[in-house]
Amino acid sequence: MNNIKELFNRVKESKPLIHHITNTVTINDCANVTLAIGGSPVMATETNEMEEMIQLADALVINFGTIHEQVFESMIRAGGAANRKGIPVIFDPVGVGATSFRTSKSQILLDQVKMDIIRGNVSELHALIGGSSQTKGVDAGEVSVSPIEIANRAAVKYKCSIGISGKEDVISDGKRTFILQNGDEILTKITGTGCMSGSIIASFAAVSEDPLNATMVGMSVMSIAGQRAKQHLKLNEGLGTFKAKLIDEIDLMNAETFNLEVRIHEY
Amino acid sequence: MNNIKELFNRVKESKPLIHHITNTVTINDCANVTLAIGGSPVMATETNEMEEMIQLADALVINFGTIHEQVFESMIRAGGAANRKGIPVIFDPVGVGATSFRTSKSQILLDQVKMDIIRGNVSELHALIGGSSQTKGVDAGEVSVSPIEIANRAAVKYKCSIGISGKEDVISDGKRTFILQNGDEILTKITGTGCMSGSIIASFAAVSEDPLNATMVGMSVMSIAGQRAKQHLKLNEGLGTFKAKLIDEIDLMNAETFNLEVRIHEY
Amino acid sequence: MNNIKELFNRVKESKPLIHHITNTVTINDCANVTLAIGGSPVMATETNEMEEMIQLADALVINFGTIHEQVFESMIRAGGAANRKGIPVIFDPVGVGATSFRTSKSQILLDQVKMDIIRGNVSELHALIGGSSQTKGVDAGEVSVSPIEIANRAAVKYKCSIGISGKEDVISDGKRTFILQNGDEILTKITGTGCMSGSIIASFAAVSEDPLNATMVGMSVMSIAGQRAKQHLKLNEGLGTFKAKLIDEIDLMNAETFNLEVRIHEY
Repeated sequence: MNNIKELFNRVKESKPLIHHITNTVTINDCANVTLAIGGSPVMATETNEMEEMIQLADALVINFGTIHEQVFESMIRAGGAANRKGIPVIFDPVGVGATSFRTSKSQILLDQVKMDIIRGNVSELHALIGGSSQTKGVDAGEVSVSPIEIANRAAVKYKCSIGISGKEDVISDGKRTFILQNGDEILTKITGTGCMSGSIIASFAAVSEDPLNATMVGMSVMSIAGQRAKQHLKLNEGLGTFKAKLIDEIDLMNAETFNLEVRIHEY
Repeated sequence: MNNIKELFNRVKESKPLIHHITNTVTINDCANVTLAIGGSPVMATETNEMEEMIQLADALVINFGTIHEQVFESMIRAGGAANRKGIPVIFDPVGVGATSFRTSKSQILLDQVKMDIIRGNVSELHALIGGSSQTKGVDAGEVSVSPIEIANRAAVKYKCSIGISGKEDVISDGKRTFILQNGDEILTKITGTGCMSGSIIASFAAVSEDPLNATMVGMSVMSIAGQRAKQHLKLNEGLGTFKAKLIDEIDLMNAETFNLEVRIHEY
Repeated sequence: MNNIKELFNRVKESKPLIHHITNTVTINDCANVTLAIGGSPVMATETNEMEEMIQLADALVINFGTIHEQVFESMIRAGGAANRKGIPVIFDPVGVGATSFRTSKSQILLDQVKMDIIRGNVSELHALIGGSSQTKGVDAGEVSVSPIEIANRAAVKYKCSIGISGKEDVISDGKRTFILQNGDEILTKITGTGCMSGSIIASFAAVSEDPLNATMVGMSVMSIAGQRAKQHLKLNEGLGTFKAKLIDEIDLMNAETFNLEVRIHEY
């Protein structure tokens, strides 16, 4: 990965405005990790202010967690404005494949809005390339195709960078594919670590020209922070304290820690 | 209570999918306690995907916290689908009795959806059996009837298990009534401990055939976790740390701890 | 400031019901700080129950964070009912000036509802007196007029008390103006400290006849709690732990601590 130190510094210095149209479950956590990494979060959803809000924004996150009809209109509106302005759009297709509502909405969105980065689990990305899977609500189900193949095909189909979270994360732009081996299972035991990594990816994408690199760095930050937060848990501490310490570690992370901990290789 | 160890293990092994249609205040905490006890939370609210989401779910939680017209439609739709599928439905009538909107919506819901468990405070349950009380918003007000009588009458009227939280919790299915003496007043000083116990009850109900037992175990888990979290508070720690430690204790609880701490007796 | 001890005690004894129509980002934190200071939060948004809910309430908080058309109707309805009942209304004009939607909605609201207190950042208050600024989403931008002048003019224009948060907070009712020098930059690194101080201000306003004093005390509580929470951070602790400790400090604060720490002077 390139220029980690510069990338971290650029976020903290320019404080990019990350506009989120996201779910009501993890919205607070997404705002707080955006601040922790150095960005500035906005979470407005009213359709009538999307164009103006995008004029202020440096990146847009669209997250399907608790999608409903009204908020979908805002996603379309904001996505179009972001494309016209030329700021990066990061899509988290939460639960796509689980219901036909989500699958059809994702197709409409992807037809109308050019994504720079799509980040999800293997079931969701599989659904986006037309595959079916035994989804389990918003968690990953079993799929018959390897995450590496799914990432490649999704990257080619949508002409963007893809991040698939899992035991090993897979990141691809259709030309190059990387495997990330950081992380810990505990990250699946609190809600929103996927959503939060979308906010971090967006913060890096807002200050660089390399969405593939922003995706790798963003997903690595979350995974490394998860490992470190777990290591700092004491006796009698569990998932509640872990969540606070996870945000601590994102806040305290710098290029030195990152470079020391990161385990990534090209496939 | 029966087979605590088996009940805990069954949740952790089968990871039941608990679909919530809940409020925007405590939605994140409900998702996180579902994960902490071993379940898998989904919190979708779009009316058009309710039937499909219920096909994936093992239990449904309906919570009136921030109910509004659109989300009420989703509750009706999801509740009907859950009844047809035969998965347990847990209803938390937040604020019923406080406004006629909530009272009338609860009547429509209870006419159309068969509940397996209703969990609320004494004012809310009193309102459900036609009584009036000095409600204080979403907190319990004074009522003239004993919680034991209210629990019994509500259980008979709605043919389901009832859990009434209070200084002592009362649990009844209209035939047997139990008094739970765990808990601590500090649980009333953070928002959402009632909502969260609904998620835990639902996780147990999803893996057993005994809703009365699931209600007792679920409410006891929350009360015992509250006691233990308070005991672990150090100097200069208050309600913010308490909330994190409460989720820690739910995460760390096992059958041994539960059986050691639980104080329940039949009335 | 007057009778701090009595003010703190009065909140804890009467547990005023603070009705919030607020955003989905910080709604949980607002409920929890209301409880931490001793109040009782309600966060209902359905238009059809606003009048009845206000009949139970002791103060109303209107916060524009994630304002959309439906919830705006509820704000108008609740604000009117609060004015008729004579309970204090606290307005947080989040993001006003950032989009014309927010600016025009704020004008409609202020035409129809008499505010007792308006609390926001300098960009938002500048927009409310007709000024423009380089807003940066929901964070404060640069303005050409001093916060003191803005506070004065807004207080005169809206006949209410004004609290402007910033490096130094400015509080004015148009006759007297105070400068508050507590606080720490870390309060800007988690989301919602402004929203939360609105809940605290409302809790004090609900039990006193002096909105200027309630604004000063409420904003001071947040700033002092922020300082103290930061001092209690240990090695390896950052923004996640800070947030929990912030609520700890609000919970643990009493008149002695407050009087020892507060740094306020009249301008």
